[in-house]
Amino acid sequence: MSSESTKRAVVLVSGGMDSAVTLAIARAQGFSCYALSVAYGQRHASELQAAARVARAHGALEHKTVDVDLRSIGGSALTADTIAVPETPGAGIPATYVPARNTIMLSIALGWAEVLGARDLFCGVNAVDYSGYPDCRPEFIEAFERLANLATKVGVEGAGMRVQAPLIRLSKAEIVREGQRHGVDFAMTVSCYQADADGHACGRCDACRLRAQGFADAGVVDPTRYR
Amino acid sequence: MSSESTKRAVVLVSGGMDSAVTLAIARAQGFSCYALSVAYGQRHASELQAAARVARAHGALEHKTVDVDLRSIGGSALTADTIAVPETPGAGIPATYVPARNTIMLSIALGWAEVLGARDLFCGVNAVDYSGYPDCRPEFIEAFERLANLATKVGVEGAGMRVQAPLIRLSKAEIVREGQRHGVDFAMTVSCYQADADGHACGRCDACRLRAQGFADAGVVDPTRYR
Repeated sequence: MSSESTKRAVVLVSGGMDSAVTLAIARAQGFSCYALSVAYGQRHASELQAAARVARAHGALEHKTVDVDLRSIGGSALTADTIAVPETPGAGIPATYVPARNTIMLSIALGWAEVLGARDLFCGVNAVDYSGYPDCRPEFIEAFERLANLATKVGVEGAGMRVQAPLIRLSKAEIVREGQRHGVDFAMTVSCYQADADGHACGRCDACRLRAQGFADAGVVDPTRYR
Repeated sequence: MSSESTKRAVVLVSGGMDSAVTLAIARAQGFSCYALSVAYGQRHASELQAAARVARAHGALEHKTVDVDLRSIGGSALTADTIAVPETPGAGIPATYVPARNTIMLSIALGWAEVLGARDLFCGVNAVDYSGYPDCRPEFIEAFERLANLATKVGVEGAGMRVQAPLIRLSKAEIVREGQRHGVDFAMTVSCYQADADGHACGRCDACRLRAQGFADAGVVDPTRYR
């Protein structure tokens, strides 16, 4: 495939539905995709197994999981056992927010992109049906792209890095439809913040609620396996 | 000390001389300092031992080392055994440049700062007597600060994060003098890219050359232990 050497992208793949759709979109745009997952000590380790399945199913040329121990920092319901995952919606940024998570994951993606000679980073952040995390907004993505072009050899030498977030302005229902269009098998994705070891979802956390609502709004059967 | 709870800073401490001086400056400004080192798979692991010594000597309240395996990405003489550390100066960005290293380290510092309620990040980057790394320049630091304020709860809620790089416009000789003024014991720091397990320097790499020239220019006896 001629695109192999000329058009590479690093795609953040978490194992959830949004990043699966993002990977499918990057592939459809003709990118040779290198899937990156970050094991940051999240509760829901089964999402990393889902990430491997998604990367394989959607033709990533390589799937790398980099460890960063954010449990040593804590401060989130996802990385500190002493903070519970909220099961009723509340005001403000929820306890599942992981400080600087997307900045850290994009930074590692940026490093790998530079080694690969990739100029595009893809991530599945969304600022419509989302949990209000600050690092999911368009202005964050724009600021990271600007930083990426100052931080790297490729930025300094003028080729330019791009940070692509193709889902950022879509509703969850639109993401479901976009995934269907690209043949994403949502049954292999895990969104739940406290999925069990086999990837069964709780059905009560914010991630579960947003996902279920998205399928309902899209009129698509929800393949999520609940426990 | 009344400043304990009100004025916290996360200080990146590598074990080299610049970050030791930076920590001393942050302490002199009245910050309660939380020292952060990142074990990214660097050749010169003895610098991490030096970081622990420096953090202790300069009154950091805590010293945390976070692991991020940048060897799995490679692409630098510091993280790939197949790339040699250059021992003669060359043109352009040298092989010791680690893709996205400072972005990754500042991102982790940002996450810890948010958990601690710290609003200041300090790092010892320098853009005068340096190796030409893109992520050591003032425009990179400014872009990271901007990103930090979009990426975090504290940024969104308006309190504001600051990224301080007090050495960025100093010559190496000025850094040596600044360190002397703040009582930094340079003998406990390790700058060499290929120091041995006991912290003995090679005297030939870029880091060694810049350091030795700094002491010479400052007219200060160089306490570096060479092998």
